[in-house]
Amino acid sequence: MSDERHIAFLRQAIKIATQNVESGEGGPFGAVVVREGRVLATGVNRVTAMNDPTAHAEMMAVREACRILGDFRLTGCEIYCSSEPCPMCLAAIYWARAERIYYAATRVEAVAVGFDDQFIHDEMAMDIAGRSIPAQRLLAEEALTPFEHWTAQQGRVHY
Amino acid sequence: MSDERHIAFLRQAIKIATQNVESGEGGPFGAVVVREGRVLATGVNRVTAMNDPTAHAEMMAVREACRILGDFRLTGCEIYCSSEPCPMCLAAIYWARAERIYYAATRVEAVAVGFDDQFIHDEMAMDIAGRSIPAQRLLAEEALTPFEHWTAQQGRVHY
Repeated sequence: MSDERHIAFLRQAIKIATQNVESGEGGPFGAVVVREGRVLATGVNRVTAMNDPTAHAEMMAVREACRILGDFRLTGCEIYCSSEPCPMCLAAIYWARAERIYYAATRVEAVAVGFDDQFIHDEMAMDIAGRSIPAQRLLAEEALTPFEHWTAQQGRVHY
Repeated sequence: MSDERHIAFLRQAIKIATQNVESGEGGPFGAVVVREGRVLATGVNRVTAMNDPTAHAEMMAVREACRILGDFRLTGCEIYCSSEPCPMCLAAIYWARAERIYYAATRVEAVAVGFDDQFIHDEMAMDIAGRSIPAQRLLAEEALTPFEHWTAQQGRVHY
């Protein structure tokens, strides 16, 4: 695709982000999933409207695109994000195996208007012991039971 | 809570993870959200059953707990995970502001049965330019428009 096409899709993500603020539905974020040069799905931030902390724009767009494709993978898809994906959304894009990300605002610009993206990036980079949400390991001796059932399961669908 | 209580909740997460494999519904993962010493919500991996790459056990449990509470925050809640949360789920737990994480299997053990948790952790730690899913910034001059509308919006709900 030409740069103009990429710019048009990213501009659409920015536009729906702004519209989402105007409608009072959620935060200033939008995302567009594109496949073979066409818009497959869009998403806007619905965290407060849906009482769902996972309802970021990229998550909504990824989930809708997968629903439309009937697949848990977005092979061959690109995602256009009005702002750099937060760690949750970035990891979701990895799990979905999307091909490429385009974004407009940076995490630094998101922090400047009150979002925690950089803080969460920083926490991810720390050892578990140093993080602000404490995490404790227990039951190491029983932990592998689900995995043993998984590897023994005939016809399991890997993802 | 006593250690026995924590162990019982984590054992429940492991149990539903194993049951999820047996039922063929998805991957070997379970999660339990606890509030004031009681189970508020549970979740199991439904990625392949729902064609939703974001349907990890922790995500399902966080979303269900928030739905029950009618809140996008899990203030005062603990989450018990059969396996160490992947970066997507960990970031979701941060966005939800949960208090504490208990887990059984480690990311290394998850990798050993075919899951990409460590790979995604490693990608997160890289500069954007070095990651395997390329990300390109465009439209820097238009990127702040949604944020400008956000900061100007009366009555915006921060999250």
